[in-house]
Amino acid sequence: MSVDRRRGIATVCLSGTLEDKLAAAAAAGFDGVELFENDLLASPWSPERVRQECADLGLSIDLYQPFRDFEAVPPDVLALNLRRAELKFDVVERLGADTVLVCSSVSPDAVDDDDLAAEQLHTLAEHAGRRGLRVAYEALAWGRFVNTYDRAWRIVRSADHPALGVCLDSFHVLSREVDPVAIRTIPGEKVFFLQLADAPRLRMDVLQWSRHHRLFPGQGAFDLTSFVDHVLATGYRGPLSLEVFNDVFRQSDPRAAAVDAMRSLLLLQEPPDAAPVLGGHAYTEIDVDETAAARVGAALAGLGFAAAGRHRSRPVELWRQGDARIVLHHRDPAHGGHAAVTAVAVASPDPTTSAARATSFLAPSLGATAVAAPDGTSVVFCRDDQDWLADFTTQPDAGEHADAGVLGTDHVGLTEPFDRFEQAGLFYRAVLGLHLDDETEFAAPFGLVRRHSVVDRGHRVRIALDSTLVRRGSWGPDVREPQHVAFTTSDAVASARVMRGLGAPLLDIPDNYYDDLDARFAPDPGLLAALREFSVLYDRDEHGEFLHFCTEVLGDRVYFEVVQRIGGYSGYGAVNAPVLMAAHRRRRRAAHDR
Amino acid sequence: MSVDRRRGIATVCLSGTLEDKLAAAAAAGFDGVELFENDLLASPWSPERVRQECADLGLSIDLYQPFRDFEAVPPDVLALNLRRAELKFDVVERLGADTVLVCSSVSPDAVDDDDLAAEQLHTLAEHAGRRGLRVAYEALAWGRFVNTYDRAWRIVRSADHPALGVCLDSFHVLSREVDPVAIRTIPGEKVFFLQLADAPRLRMDVLQWSRHHRLFPGQGAFDLTSFVDHVLATGYRGPLSLEVFNDVFRQSDPRAAAVDAMRSLLLLQEPPDAAPVLGGHAYTEIDVDETAAARVGAALAGLGFAAAGRHRSRPVELWRQGDARIVLHHRDPAHGGHAAVTAVAVASPDPTTSAARATSFLAPSLGATAVAAPDGTSVVFCRDDQDWLADFTTQPDAGEHADAGVLGTDHVGLTEPFDRFEQAGLFYRAVLGLHLDDETEFAAPFGLVRRHSVVDRGHRVRIALDSTLVRRGSWGPDVREPQHVAFTTSDAVASARVMRGLGAPLLDIPDNYYDDLDARFAPDPGLLAALREFSVLYDRDEHGEFLHFCTEVLGDRVYFEVVQRIGGYSGYGAVNAPVLMAAHRRRRRAAHDR
Repeated sequence: MSVDRRRGIATVCLSGTLEDKLAAAAAAGFDGVELFENDLLASPWSPERVRQECADLGLSIDLYQPFRDFEAVPPDVLALNLRRAELKFDVVERLGADTVLVCSSVSPDAVDDDDLAAEQLHTLAEHAGRRGLRVAYEALAWGRFVNTYDRAWRIVRSADHPALGVCLDSFHVLSREVDPVAIRTIPGEKVFFLQLADAPRLRMDVLQWSRHHRLFPGQGAFDLTSFVDHVLATGYRGPLSLEVFNDVFRQSDPRAAAVDAMRSLLLLQEPPDAAPVLGGHAYTEIDVDETAAARVGAALAGLGFAAAGRHRSRPVELWRQGDARIVLHHRDPAHGGHAAVTAVAVASPDPTTSAARATSFLAPSLGATAVAAPDGTSVVFCRDDQDWLADFTTQPDAGEHADAGVLGTDHVGLTEPFDRFEQAGLFYRAVLGLHLDDETEFAAPFGLVRRHSVVDRGHRVRIALDSTLVRRGSWGPDVREPQHVAFTTSDAVASARVMRGLGAPLLDIPDNYYDDLDARFAPDPGLLAALREFSVLYDRDEHGEFLHFCTEVLGDRVYFEVVQRIGGYSGYGAVNAPVLMAAHRRRRRAAHDR
Repeated sequence: MSVDRRRGIATVCLSGTLEDKLAAAAAAGFDGVELFENDLLASPWSPERVRQECADLGLSIDLYQPFRDFEAVPPDVLALNLRRAELKFDVVERLGADTVLVCSSVSPDAVDDDDLAAEQLHTLAEHAGRRGLRVAYEALAWGRFVNTYDRAWRIVRSADHPALGVCLDSFHVLSREVDPVAIRTIPGEKVFFLQLADAPRLRMDVLQWSRHHRLFPGQGAFDLTSFVDHVLATGYRGPLSLEVFNDVFRQSDPRAAAVDAMRSLLLLQEPPDAAPVLGGHAYTEIDVDETAAARVGAALAGLGFAAAGRHRSRPVELWRQGDARIVLHHRDPAHGGHAAVTAVAVASPDPTTSAARATSFLAPSLGATAVAAPDGTSVVFCRDDQDWLADFTTQPDAGEHADAGVLGTDHVGLTEPFDRFEQAGLFYRAVLGLHLDDETEFAAPFGLVRRHSVVDRGHRVRIALDSTLVRRGSWGPDVREPQHVAFTTSDAVASARVMRGLGAPLLDIPDNYYDDLDARFAPDPGLLAALREFSVLYDRDEHGEFLHFCTEVLGDRVYFEVVQRIGGYSGYGAVNAPVLMAAHRRRRRAAHDR
């Protein structure tokens, strides 16, 4: 979808007081807001002051919301509801806004009578129209009688008042089993407002799903591209406005959440196939202090990597094996053992354009060919190896290392705080043009871990994002959650044998694990023996097999993994992750006890 | 229910490695464990070593679990499943355990044929019985065909093998709409195992509900007392064993979680009416440093409290008005403005017995009449006022203060970290014999807030526990979440008028709030004007009305509230909490800007 139009956000999406929310929305480049009533009620600003503050920030007030439980009621209740509406219309006028959202009723006072609903909404529209205001009627997915967009539209059509139209909310439409295509039959001038929200597919009470688990477009499972196409096909000319209720976003820094929100709209509006074609992982950069440098270097040597070059001007060394490259950046002379993945570099045919596209998605620029991710990682675009390898002197011993069968980089594994997980996922998908490959959740020894894996169309660049609902951390109470770089091999057992011979600090896996593998898969006894001997883990799905093993954590938070994919296995061995984490813990404790 | 028998816990309830879990279970006084298979797989201990470690800790291994997807399959799958079972039976023998949990199948290989299921479970029991092992068959609530306990029992009865019985799990039974009373028809010797878990009533996918939201008994909505009665009526003689999957407990310190688990079983087993009869809030103690002492003292004076006494030996002053008493403890000579509620004192006819009962619930003792809550608050039992008031000298001016209509203490509001919320709730309910009064969730300006309010049978002691899924905090990014003490009045408007006259630092509430009150409730214009004039908040439910107002936060985290309950209103004005929080934020900012 390529469409240039006004972008809005409901104040309820953001955390803080009204003042915080408006400032954040304006800073992220939104054109307007939906003013959520509770934000106004808690504010000391009069409606006139809110109007002025919004104008000063360049924000229009596109909608006042919500007005609840109005229609299809007995005459005495109608009188009270009209009184309530008039008092709210006073506020809307003072705000200088012109459209009020009216949600379909959930009231026990309401009756199941569309004709009565239409008649009373006509009356309400008459009251609104006299003041130059408009009523946008929305079917809540849990409305008592009116809970689908088509029924709301039939009532609006039948009410037949110029000040009455519908509000279409993607959550309320797509959470129901009603085909959204009939949206196209609504005249555009009767679509008064469009609210956008994504969500994961959850099998739960729709009200709870809506109030707690909405996401920004691109973070969930809904087909918002088609949905917006349907709405725009009507001739709708209003803003694309986000309305997302999410427990985590509600307590996030509103400035970051507003940027995330804007990024989601920009991505939604990008033409198809605009993302860069990626050539694979060019290199992964790891910052090390002096102690970690020795440990990481020794581990790389043990994995069969060669120290292949030194940077001409910076304290940076290059290690390589096959197409896998690790850049160690000696940034810190300390001896605390700090090591962290600081840059993910990918090959792109046009790095400058790729980086410019990334900054258009509000990624902070780090020069002509690099941007910063929200988690602090640099994302670097490289044309080809020669480009950046020219900065390195070749080591004399580069040809002499022991090859352990590493062919390239399979994926980089990053860990994100739980309250920035969705933000990180959207960032990497937007900026690198990746799509969700695998999404899983598993019980680790120290807590539940969520993992999103994202991959490019050519399956050359993979990033695995882990997160956990932590106090203690998925990896234990005593450690920062690690990052990792996974290398590919065509024979994991052979690689493990060579690497153990070279002294790589590989993890040992318990016998109990292999006894269970035998029970679950009844593998060839020779393979099982080899896996057990070299502590190689195994998984199988309907598409293929996966063999993998890991080093211990080097420094405070980086380890290496070696993986072999057989057939179309597209996962990351999540089933084995708890066993790996426990093995890491044991190794850490043993090192601590030494 | 009063029953004395062995208590167990599934290792899956607790966080950490197997070593951590066993140590925590033993330390909390459990007699046995259910060994969760994944905990064994990740452990370097051989089954024989696990057996020995458990024996050394005084723990039996009561169950090995789970074995999945066995029954009602074609012959070729049966052969593989029997191979798998034999390998697991090897492990169970090595562990020295005798019972294996077999869950009803969710496999696509299974067919809907109870006779076939019975026949194949008979075969499995034959294999188990040869080794002296037993199979406990459990209906998962989401089993493909077998998903109710009565169907599982019919299959077991029809299979008719001495090594085959049922496992009854309270979650799987009570999450379904099947009456649990028919449990009583199962012969006790065929009930091989009993697993207990509570849960909130959620309208969601039952598998997700089970895997993420189970709670310890007494923390949820299930009637576990009746459930256990049904099971014990069969003649079941095995342990009461907890199996709770909970995302928060999974990452908590296992030692604290195990204590919490044991407390839940002790409470479940306590005879009815064993809880103390409470006489009301005796006093609330607030620790203050020098700066906070001045501010809190000035605020109390502004609320019409009198400095009524000084402790004879400790730096403690007593403030009172009506039956409301605040004890200020000058514990810290610093000037940072620290103030915190440190003790909740309640009147009890027999303080020593009440405190002894509390310590029997594993509450750490703080002397003969006080215990420590998990959040660090002291819970003190007092016989009557004279008992402890004797320690105070009377102030000469105690009779001369301005009475502002405060009659007593309505409730104490404490805030808990989200990952200790259930623990705190269970603690206060167990130790004070309170029950859940009100449970709500609301969107505050800086995040979602959960609130549990607990009250005694006589409605004299109320504690409100707040929690939030935070990074930023429900009260904003810049503040520790406050605690509060709420006093009762019979005329909130009159009290507010007097207190404002006395200079109490009361919050101002925005006009927008009162405009909305007008729209929502159409109150008497005179009342509305008075509420607006004195910044008194208002709520109404089907039982009565609630008027309330607050001071600013005094020191870093304490404020006072004054409430008027009219009729049977039993809530705490949660609907107004976001407005109050925003008002607190403004006051803090204004103070900061001064």
